[in-house]
Amino acid sequence: MQAVMSAEEMNAFLDDVFPQVKGAFVVEHLDGVNTVMRMRISEQHLRPGGTVSGPTMFTLADVAAYVATLACIGREALTVTTNCSLDFMRKPVSGRDLIAKATLLKLGRNLSVSHILIYSEGEDMPVARANMTYAIPPKS
Amino acid sequence: MQAVMSAEEMNAFLDDVFPQVKGAFVVEHLDGVNTVMRMRISEQHLRPGGTVSGPTMFTLADVAAYVATLACIGREALTVTTNCSLDFMRKPVSGRDLIAKATLLKLGRNLSVSHILIYSEGEDMPVARANMTYAIPPKS
Amino acid sequence: MQAVMSAEEMNAFLDDVFPQVKGAFVVEHLDGVNTVMRMRISEQHLRPGGTVSGPTMFTLADVAAYVATLACIGREALTVTTNCSLDFMRKPVSGRDLIAKATLLKLGRNLSVSHILIYSEGEDMPVARANMTYAIPPKS
Amino acid sequence: MQAVMSAEEMNAFLDDVFPQVKGAFVVEHLDGVNTVMRMRISEQHLRPGGTVSGPTMFTLADVAAYVATLACIGREALTVTTNCSLDFMRKPVSGRDLIAKATLLKLGRNLSVSHILIYSEGEDMPVARANMTYAIPPKS
Repeated sequence: MQAVMSAEEMNAFLDDVFPQVKGAFVVEHLDGVNTVMRMRISEQHLRPGGTVSGPTMFTLADVAAYVATLACIGREALTVTTNCSLDFMRKPVSGRDLIAKATLLKLGRNLSVSHILIYSEGEDMPVARANMTYAIPPKS
Repeated sequence: MQAVMSAEEMNAFLDDVFPQVKGAFVVEHLDGVNTVMRMRISEQHLRPGGTVSGPTMFTLADVAAYVATLACIGREALTVTTNCSLDFMRKPVSGRDLIAKATLLKLGRNLSVSHILIYSEGEDMPVARANMTYAIPPKS
Repeated sequence: MQAVMSAEEMNAFLDDVFPQVKGAFVVEHLDGVNTVMRMRISEQHLRPGGTVSGPTMFTLADVAAYVATLACIGREALTVTTNCSLDFMRKPVSGRDLIAKATLLKLGRNLSVSHILIYSEGEDMPVARANMTYAIPPKS
Repeated sequence: MQAVMSAEEMNAFLDDVFPQVKGAFVVEHLDGVNTVMRMRISEQHLRPGGTVSGPTMFTLADVAAYVATLACIGREALTVTTNCSLDFMRKPVSGRDLIAKATLLKLGRNLSVSHILIYSEGEDMPVARANMTYAIPPKS
């Protein structure tokens, strides 16, 4: 599993296909196996009490797995999530960015499988764990 | 498992605790076991191509499981998702509301487990399937 | 989704491909969408205390989803599980058979998705819930 | 999260509570966070074609998560699996032992969450991925 895009190219691609969240997700590292992604947390992602909402963490895990997959197959905007499972384990620290560390475990012809750990920046223990399966469209 | 709140009381409670999405989620039916919830789909939930995004479906499944649990334990805003798993199976029909049908499978002292099927309104086959575990805070 | 095999044909097929568990799994009902399967519980499936073990319930869910899929695509011994998620919710009743009720939610070209509820015979509330994804080999 | 049992003590405990599989599971490493467990594969675990069956991999993941949890809380035979999710990603190599590498991600008062990667001995890429939640009984 080898990267065919750089972190810089991936960030430009994300801004292009998801203009509505431009700047919220930043790829900090990317190789054929590991991806590190930052989500800039702002007011809109918070629940009462200052905690980051579940859908926000789902979105981060989803984007990180998408990036981990595209890093190896190239720009395929039609790649879609088919399955995911998440454990929410700790309350994120209020006011901190979230960091997702994704590992691409399988890249098959039809499917990719990634595992993602999400951390509040600067913390040792993850706030959430996710696995994501993406369906890869057949080459036309 | 017996409902201690009506659909009407639940809708008022949701508007109260999630004012930011007021009117987007409507409980249409609720008893001790089954919950039917409508999500009014608008422009903000759509991805390019007119399809409803994954995070939007996650949010609907999450809220439906929350309502199924609270219907039996009463207003406990602190009840939190600890685990979920989703299968995205079909593309939602563009421009239609989503309907979630949740079944409460277990209501224990610490945990509830729900199963949710999500449909584009008027369709026979589900667009997504989810299971959600909620942690119930100890009575103080 | 339409059945191309009868329950009788399926039972003969299972005895053929899994001779080592002959008679343990019996298809009691099968149509294009719903499958009901009995697992005869004997000493070897029990943990200390008389409860059915987790791997036994996994096996039952797995076989029920396999049958639900094959009922529609025909004898394809190479169909394999790619993903599953299980919730263990109650202790099975000691000395009772397990009944799995599987629903085929999606039958695509490459994948099938099933949902399974497992009951101790004669009980109203499920002991376990599972979802299973099977990969369907391409027609050669 | 700190280990309160050694690998040696754990192996003796497993032989004691699961005499029916004595010698099949061996803890090779154990600390408060990481557990490495070997499963000796023999004829009974194989499916036609020489591959290890799904229930066998489920069992290994389950035992590895149990050991990861007990390493920190001590001998609690009543600790039970409440949720799991598995991805089966590659065919195990015929005739090789399986090695599970479990990481304890959370140890709460009521629940533990572990992540497990399973390998055919000597291979770089995992054959399966699992996450397991265990319920921890209240101290009496």
